Amino acid sequence: MTYCLGIKLAQASVMISDSRTSAGVDNISTYSKMWRFGVPGNRQFVLCSAGNLATTQSVVATIERDIKSEAPTNLNTVVDMKAAAEYIGAINVDVSVKAGGGGVFESTFLLAGEILGAEHELLMIYPQGNFIASSQHVPYMQIGETKYGKPILDRVVDESTTVEEAIMCGLISMEATMKSNLSVGPPIEISTIERGSLQPGIYKMLGEDDKYLRNLRDSWNSEMIKAIHNMPMLKL
Amino acid sequence: MTYCLGIKLAQASVMISDSRTSAGVDNISTYSKMWRFGVPGNRQFVLCSAGNLATTQSVVATIERDIKSEAPTNLNTVVDMKAAAEYIGAINVDVSVKAGGGGVFESTFLLAGEILGAEHELLMIYPQGNFIASSQHVPYMQIGETKYGKPILDRVVDESTTVEEAIMCGLISMEATMKSNLSVGPPIEISTIERGSLQPGIYKMLGEDDKYLRNLRDSWNSEMIKAIHNMPMLKL
Repeated sequence: MTYCLGIKLAQASVMISDSRTSAGVDNISTYSKMWRFGVPGNRQFVLCSAGNLATTQSVVATIERDIKSEAPTNLNTVVDMKAAAEYIGAINVDVSVKAGGGGVFESTFLLAGEILGAEHELLMIYPQGNFIASSQHVPYMQIGETKYGKPILDRVVDESTTVEEAIMCGLISMEATMKSNLSVGPPIEISTIERGSLQPGIYKMLGEDDKYLRNLRDSWNSEMIKAIHNMPMLKL
Repeated sequence: MTYCLGIKLAQASVMISDSRTSAGVDNISTYSKMWRFGVPGNRQFVLCSAGNLATTQSVVATIERDIKSEAPTNLNTVVDMKAAAEYIGAINVDVSVKAGGGGVFESTFLLAGEILGAEHELLMIYPQGNFIASSQHVPYMQIGETKYGKPILDRVVDESTTVEEAIMCGLISMEATMKSNLSVGPPIEISTIERGSLQPGIYKMLGEDDKYLRNLRDSWNSEMIKAIHNMPMLKL
């Protein structure tokens, strides 16, 4: 399993991903699920994946090869984010069909980015190659194991949330997921794309023993217990 | 969908269930998913269900009919909680097979209770008729839409939790689920079975506009936001 989260804010897009891959609990490994592409001053992308690891790696290899070989359509030539999603969606379908098709070979992607002269966007690309944009009302999108970490996002995150707050909430959402589901695990990667900058954003990788992550985990645990103690009790 | 939760504490068992049933978002209704059985001074049970509504209703009708007709094996004759689970499991299989079998007709149950001279237990009964007991390390069991409401339980609930705290945490878990999944909804029912009392426990039903539930929801929301403000920020 996997948990990746994208949040489109007024200020920037934030992407957060875990790094655990599993083909059963007895076959667990660590792979990055986040890739960054771009041409400074012209375009920036962050891509995250959930699903079949072979499909994902092949999709990313194709994206990289197309850039290098200057294929007519590649991430550096597409005119807007929807065209980028269409391009990645088509590769995604090709790769999984070639492997035999069906659910086992499917991958889903989150794509955040901005291209000069076009909209800043956050998109989810389905295994079928089609895609959707994030909603103004719910500015986040999740792929993989989405449920454990959803309540905190629903309560706290909106478009006006700052990048720092969004990262912190996203990491709490990630922590909740890791606590309840062994198939989601560190290191956690974080990338941002600032609106209008067209420059590479922030990139951070937090390992299991990362001081900040441990601090956040402990603080959140103690805040939860404090919060519980402040809750009204039902009269029995 | 459904969300039901059982917690086995040192003091008592607590059961909490929602009341929404859905056969698609355009076919939503309200049915209780909680039943109480017992003979004061001899035995007490609380049963909760998730799954096919027709199967559930038929299982409960059979349990009631067997008690009324004093069938050789019924909830009032079984010698311990595992025998009770075996009995209900067998009915569950019969009913769903009669309807055609397969996933569509399946139901899962939580059964809490105590019988004179036997252990106080919390059990989960599967569609296949088999069952498991709650673990000492994780004293709660969930059926239905279990993921949204799990993180708070993992952080807070253990065997030593009081009944009042367990009900409050269970309702926060239920609130988180209702907020993130439309197919789980009020009224919320709560039952307890006190260890060693063998008398009917507390029963409460909280509607959508229940003052306490609204108070809990608002308090939790504001505590979450307060907690978020107390969290350390990642240095970018």
